[in-house]
Amino acid sequence: MNLRIKKVYAKLKEEGLDGLLLSSPANISYLTGYLSRDSYLLISPRGKVYITDARYLQEAKQSLKGYSFRETKGNLSEVIADASGKLKLERIGFEERDLVFADYKKIKSALGRTADFIPVYGLVEELRQIKSPQELACIRKAVQITLKALEFAADFISPGKKETEVAGELERFIRYCGGRSSAFDIIVASGPNSSFPHHLTSQRRIGNNEPVLIDIGVECSGYKSDLTRVFFLGKINLLNRKIYDIVLGAQEAAIKRIKPGIFINKIDTAARQYISRKGYGGFFGHALGHGIGLAVHEAPGISPRAAGKLKAGMVFTVEPAIYLPGKFGIRIEDMVLVTQKGARVISGALHK
Amino acid sequence: MNLRIKKVYAKLKEEGLDGLLLSSPANISYLTGYLSRDSYLLISPRGKVYITDARYLQEAKQSLKGYSFRETKGNLSEVIADASGKLKLERIGFEERDLVFADYKKIKSALGRTADFIPVYGLVEELRQIKSPQELACIRKAVQITLKALEFAADFISPGKKETEVAGELERFIRYCGGRSSAFDIIVASGPNSSFPHHLTSQRRIGNNEPVLIDIGVECSGYKSDLTRVFFLGKINLLNRKIYDIVLGAQEAAIKRIKPGIFINKIDTAARQYISRKGYGGFFGHALGHGIGLAVHEAPGISPRAAGKLKAGMVFTVEPAIYLPGKFGIRIEDMVLVTQKGARVISGALHK
Repeated sequence: MNLRIKKVYAKLKEEGLDGLLLSSPANISYLTGYLSRDSYLLISPRGKVYITDARYLQEAKQSLKGYSFRETKGNLSEVIADASGKLKLERIGFEERDLVFADYKKIKSALGRTADFIPVYGLVEELRQIKSPQELACIRKAVQITLKALEFAADFISPGKKETEVAGELERFIRYCGGRSSAFDIIVASGPNSSFPHHLTSQRRIGNNEPVLIDIGVECSGYKSDLTRVFFLGKINLLNRKIYDIVLGAQEAAIKRIKPGIFINKIDTAARQYISRKGYGGFFGHALGHGIGLAVHEAPGISPRAAGKLKAGMVFTVEPAIYLPGKFGIRIEDMVLVTQKGARVISGALHK
Repeated sequence: MNLRIKKVYAKLKEEGLDGLLLSSPANISYLTGYLSRDSYLLISPRGKVYITDARYLQEAKQSLKGYSFRETKGNLSEVIADASGKLKLERIGFEERDLVFADYKKIKSALGRTADFIPVYGLVEELRQIKSPQELACIRKAVQITLKALEFAADFISPGKKETEVAGELERFIRYCGGRSSAFDIIVASGPNSSFPHHLTSQRRIGNNEPVLIDIGVECSGYKSDLTRVFFLGKINLLNRKIYDIVLGAQEAAIKRIKPGIFINKIDTAARQYISRKGYGGFFGHALGHGIGLAVHEAPGISPRAAGKLKAGMVFTVEPAIYLPGKFGIRIEDMVLVTQKGARVISGALHK
């Protein structure tokens, strides 16, 4: 029996549930070891049912052992109710952050009075926070390719190139380095576009003496990386340099505080206070970072509102930033692993 | 006043709603003309509120006129309730297929007794089905780039290349042709991998005398394309050729029936029956096609279960297929526009 699923069964018991309907692709992939898309998994100590449509059925059957399979044909709720009935389930948890209201409503109605349908969150996400050595190996591989891609970008970008063309070169490069794909739409933000934290890479041509922000992630065996660097073409002006140094200082201040047992929001606070003390508190609006693994954004979030403490084995981004509207923005994003001794920066090879 | 929003207001009135909370990025983009991500829009004849977080706030403010803005900081439900209160809304619709249960629950609770929170679907999706000339121009541009990319692929693919490398070359190529990005993870499925309808592009090297299926889409100004071709390296064996001809025949049978007023499921049936008559009815499991525009998959779905009739101005894919498990698969996917005279295939330039 798969140890991960065993842990989920123990949690189900604690919660008084006899089954769990999973709809998060990352959670299903984590429990099955198979990269699931657009599918559902109903698990219970009485049986495990993989529910998908014709697009994935053959692939799933070849990849998964110890599961039964059900095909949906636009009748998801009936298939789930039928599978639940066969397992005689009476209290089924569902993933409240990964099921849209319409599906919830239909499934609940199809289950009728045979089973309660109960919102839950975190049963699998909590396990996913602590990475195994195998998971770390995949993440490290994705990070190494990303670092190579950023070195390539440093050589490649030049005035006159379009942002989209830079993204296209990176998309190609990472695959020749062994990445399966990019982990998300690569952000290439030049000049004033860098002042938008989530700029949509555009046809804008890079100008002389501009900062170019690149936010890129790679997927290897389902695991993701996510790094950001800012490159300066030509001369770096004094304000660019000043802001850059503040952001780098904020990142160092945050990373220094990372160790098992510390409250997560303190990490965010360390960077945020550093930036505030330097006079730019109003220009860093988003969270400091996010857990990363099978999903680009996963638990733990590293924000002012984060609850809980750091644990060894967590992997997350540390990405302080300052955005000066209409001018430019600087974000420096690295990935760290929490070890017993503190933070290990797993993306530290590139000179920033 | 934006005509699209005016039409939504008319529908709200019919439904007895005084406001609508949008959470579908494509619907918000359609109504605002701004490519929205990770955001919400609360609209009512009494006011329009764009709700987003620090990552998008500046960009949205620069792009949208006639809206008020609210920033969320992990408190989405409170911000929505507050904005609703200021507009004195009492019956708010929400997009039941684009809001996860957890958010529904929190927003409903924050609204409390001040406003009903009512699931709706299709208010905007129905409008989006009929493309305007401006929308068609964007779609046509995306299609033209995709066709060029497929011609490039025909020259480029060769035995020994990895599937991921082919995808990487295409990702680069489409951006130099003026595409903003790919519309989805490009599928390159070689040999037996082509028998999986939604193969996850892998490190497999293309072999001699194999079919290579490429499913690719391009995004231009938010609008998407989605086309599939199968290329044969070296010799085409008799079975490959036979299956290919059946799939092509099925596509022609379906396209021939397309005209305004015909029941949508009849289009699916035309292709499905053709394949069945040729003896391969068990090997075409998915729907025949899907509407496409701001989203890769949107209304109308072209499936056996589709309700409703075709209307002029609809754009959708026609993608019959036959998948022989363990052997190979053939899918031919084109995009058609419904005109008063029948189907206009807008992706027909490439010899299949």
